[in-house]
Amino acid sequence: MALILTFLGKGGVGRTTIAIAAAKRFANQGKRVLLAIQEAGPAPGLMLGMALEPDPKELAPHLQVVQFHGTTLLERSWEELKKLEAQYLRTPFFKEVFGQELGILPGMDSALVLNAVREYDASGNYDVIVLDGAGDQSTLRMLGMPEIAGWYIRRFRQVFADSDLGKTLSPFIQPIASAVLNVSWSDDPFNQPVTRQATDILEQGRQAIADPSRVIAYLVATEEEGAIATAHYLWGAAQQVGLTVGGVIANQTSDTSAFNARFAPLPVSGVANQPANDWQSLIDALPNFDLASQVPPPIAINVAERKVSLFLPGFDKKQVKLTQYGPEITIEAGDQRRNIFLPPELSGKPVAGARFQDSFLIISF
Amino acid sequence: MALILTFLGKGGVGRTTIAIAAAKRFANQGKRVLLAIQEAGPAPGLMLGMALEPDPKELAPHLQVVQFHGTTLLERSWEELKKLEAQYLRTPFFKEVFGQELGILPGMDSALVLNAVREYDASGNYDVIVLDGAGDQSTLRMLGMPEIAGWYIRRFRQVFADSDLGKTLSPFIQPIASAVLNVSWSDDPFNQPVTRQATDILEQGRQAIADPSRVIAYLVATEEEGAIATAHYLWGAAQQVGLTVGGVIANQTSDTSAFNARFAPLPVSGVANQPANDWQSLIDALPNFDLASQVPPPIAINVAERKVSLFLPGFDKKQVKLTQYGPEITIEAGDQRRNIFLPPELSGKPVAGARFQDSFLIISF
Repeated sequence: MALILTFLGKGGVGRTTIAIAAAKRFANQGKRVLLAIQEAGPAPGLMLGMALEPDPKELAPHLQVVQFHGTTLLERSWEELKKLEAQYLRTPFFKEVFGQELGILPGMDSALVLNAVREYDASGNYDVIVLDGAGDQSTLRMLGMPEIAGWYIRRFRQVFADSDLGKTLSPFIQPIASAVLNVSWSDDPFNQPVTRQATDILEQGRQAIADPSRVIAYLVATEEEGAIATAHYLWGAAQQVGLTVGGVIANQTSDTSAFNARFAPLPVSGVANQPANDWQSLIDALPNFDLASQVPPPIAINVAERKVSLFLPGFDKKQVKLTQYGPEITIEAGDQRRNIFLPPELSGKPVAGARFQDSFLIISF
Repeated sequence: MALILTFLGKGGVGRTTIAIAAAKRFANQGKRVLLAIQEAGPAPGLMLGMALEPDPKELAPHLQVVQFHGTTLLERSWEELKKLEAQYLRTPFFKEVFGQELGILPGMDSALVLNAVREYDASGNYDVIVLDGAGDQSTLRMLGMPEIAGWYIRRFRQVFADSDLGKTLSPFIQPIASAVLNVSWSDDPFNQPVTRQATDILEQGRQAIADPSRVIAYLVATEEEGAIATAHYLWGAAQQVGLTVGGVIANQTSDTSAFNARFAPLPVSGVANQPANDWQSLIDALPNFDLASQVPPPIAINVAERKVSLFLPGFDKKQVKLTQYGPEITIEAGDQRRNIFLPPELSGKPVAGARFQDSFLIISF
């Protein structure tokens, strides 16, 4: 298992430069590092002085670099899907369509990149993966996917089971399954080996992203007001996908006074402007990423005190909404919504009270 | 119908500033303008000096501004879906789930924003919509969605009809449709009013995006090499979704020499550094966006000469692949794949030859 480190911030603040420096720093420490670049096009290769490819290649000792390529990843995933259908379907269907024909729809890149990161992580080849993504809300959507997709499955499974539609369709499920599948299939499509495997992968992803010793984000901003405001917003937005933010990098400045109060309790590291290609000074100015897990976690559940505490910095009281339309509690803040899956001791209990104080939303049951 | 104008370029080159200036310029000309901002968070509001909302509000005479909010758009679309199910299903199913519970998965933002732009366009309230999107490949994925989603439907519909799986399932379709639908349903699920309506919307979107008098993109870059290289890459990538690029804006420089040869035949407009809040000089430096349709179209089909010509600037010969795995011709360049749907006269004909010359891929049949 690797430590996965990513950087959030407004476009143009130097996230890719910081990501490269962080990757070099870990490699200098003897760690096996993968620098994984999501941006398409020639700019990252220009910065690194080498042509990048969809498979990892060596940039320096201990340091490999990969530039994700959506169509290549899609072709590979399509081959995996064909293996699955060969295993489960009586007659192949997806086999008739070639991976080389497939165009990319919105969202596919995120799913494919997240899956590729999962595979690099599981390979055991890396101690650290530095993910240079879009660094904005789309990165958070990507990292939020395991939790949110898990919620959709959980919620719709129950609605389907309880619905008249589900009852109307249920007599058809067994005959259809017998006609098309070459494996036995019980009545619940969600409780099959293949669907269990998919939900297990989502749950493992959710747990990894919620664990600051596994996945951690740092904010990057310059002194420009828009850059600071965006970093502040992304700080709160990250908590909403369960991602811990470990600190702030104040780029191109050694004066961190504009940052300290605004981002407390996060540590702020000033990184002064470096001469071009002076990577060593930049590397030396970076914080110690290994200490990142000492900040408040996005969510803490205290069963004994019947309290759930959410750390939601960057939002004021009016921007945070707590609702309970469905069976779970929904927290809305920024442009994100999170459903809190409670442990059995608290699940289904009515909310007794909620208050928002010092960036924490504290819900009592 | 409005003119939809968007800007592509690397993060931090000033796309949002240019988008605001373009919107102001059209409004000064008396056009009814909507400035539609996709970036979440506070930075765009700071630039405009007002709090932005998920519905249009007035920024200046003739000029309205909206900041898209994914969760708000998702709630509204969910209500539309509930109306559809009320019309088609015997017993409601989606009604059991509240729009207020739904989290956002990758790709949803793009689909929701594209649909919102379509609705603002159809409203007749605007002459021009300036779309300030991510400006990178994700914007191209969004604008490519109607064509690519149309392809997936077309391709899988045929594969399903021809497959043993389709034949095995077909006896079940009619009984299931009778059990769950309150409308009559023929054997072909793709040829129903609701599916025809969906494919019509996709086809209208595809045609609008391919029409430079309806949707046009401009590249924005500073003199920095990475910014120029990224703009150059996005130029070619835009053609791959059928989007016409009308010109280049060389931002923060009046010396356009680094741009002219590289972006020929596009017009290049130099926009010198302006003092803060001097919008008028910036507005005056912008090109005349109405002339944008005078550049080569992304695709030209000549039935009489049995030739298809694709304009693919920004790529060299090695980066462009032509394949024909499936029934259509696939063009791969950059990180995009496009399937060319040929007119009946050329469809199914074998490719007689292809050459790549002066940024044009010319395919003969």
